[in-house]
Amino acid sequence: MQGRFIVIEGLEGAGKSTAMGICEQALNSRGIDFVKVREPGGTPLAESLRSLVKSHHEENVAPETELLIMYAARAQLIHNVIKPALSKGQWVLADRHDWSSQAYQGGGRQLPQTHLDALATIVLNGLTPDLVLYLDIEPSLGLSRARGRGELDRIEQEAIEFFERTRAKYLSLVENASFGVKIDASQSMTQVHDDIHNALSQFLDKVC
Amino acid sequence: MQGRFIVIEGLEGAGKSTAMGICEQALNSRGIDFVKVREPGGTPLAESLRSLVKSHHEENVAPETELLIMYAARAQLIHNVIKPALSKGQWVLADRHDWSSQAYQGGGRQLPQTHLDALATIVLNGLTPDLVLYLDIEPSLGLSRARGRGELDRIEQEAIEFFERTRAKYLSLVENASFGVKIDASQSMTQVHDDIHNALSQFLDKVC
Repeated sequence: MQGRFIVIEGLEGAGKSTAMGICEQALNSRGIDFVKVREPGGTPLAESLRSLVKSHHEENVAPETELLIMYAARAQLIHNVIKPALSKGQWVLADRHDWSSQAYQGGGRQLPQTHLDALATIVLNGLTPDLVLYLDIEPSLGLSRARGRGELDRIEQEAIEFFERTRAKYLSLVENASFGVKIDASQSMTQVHDDIHNALSQFLDKVC
Repeated sequence: MQGRFIVIEGLEGAGKSTAMGICEQALNSRGIDFVKVREPGGTPLAESLRSLVKSHHEENVAPETELLIMYAARAQLIHNVIKPALSKGQWVLADRHDWSSQAYQGGGRQLPQTHLDALATIVLNGLTPDLVLYLDIEPSLGLSRARGRGELDRIEQEAIEFFERTRAKYLSLVENASFGVKIDASQSMTQVHDDIHNALSQFLDKVC
């Protein structure tokens, strides 16, 4: 049987790492065999692309360059990790996937939707997550959490308006996708934990 | 006045570097201000992408990954070098440009033309060379010349059929583009030199 594909999405500081941990535990406790990936990255070449796109450069990085590096890394991860795992029946648990490009490069950078649609056609080739948990947070709150963790990367240093547009795009994606669940990540940690756990349990009860 | 955009194209070992030298001399002798670029590459970030895409990897590089890295590098070069130069009135002399992707990834790797068209829309945004000099050579001859120069990179190590398909695509491009000139690069060096010089002089006489 084909494996299932679960994705965690959200702004910096929304709590994606914690959410990944909760999902890992839940999958383990049900004895589900899964691989964990992160985007951009997840293969040696894709990790090299990640470090190129996230690091600071002397030159200005064109929005289209950023967009294409993200999709190059995604293509590599899909070919070499995600598709092989799913077709072996393994599940895939991903820290970010296509919604990140839709939200950051489409929403934040305001690149045309036609660019994103064209790249989705080339790279995703019909691949859709079975579940996306979107951790929703006010950009100002998320960024202050992220700043507390250390230095911000090139993309994290954008102005607040960039993240407002990114969030707005995330919200429109989660409202329009049957496989999307919005989690209010501004709540107490216990409440966020419970909400993630419940959303995941509901999904697992349905498909297992 | 907007500058002009001249591109040298061809397989490995076709003599692109020599052709670049001939063009440089001709532009200099007419007092034309120009910048010289190479693809993939031409900016620090694009050169990093070049070295990633050309080097050998433990993992298989997905054809779509290769394609997207090429266009990411091209987007960066166009934004930061080619367009600024052309709009300042400088000319641009390029060692490879979009036809390389059409020929290698479209022809050689047999990626769908729709992928290439979509990326051209995103990245080129209407940019077209004023002159492409395509150096045509039998792949076996070109590769034996390239091998004589040292170790082959990841793409240069493809099977001969890959380069046959690449050449076929180059031939179809040059036959169908008003700005394309085919140079028979299997002739003697003197003859190739003369042909390049003549094609370029004809172009310069027309536009200068």
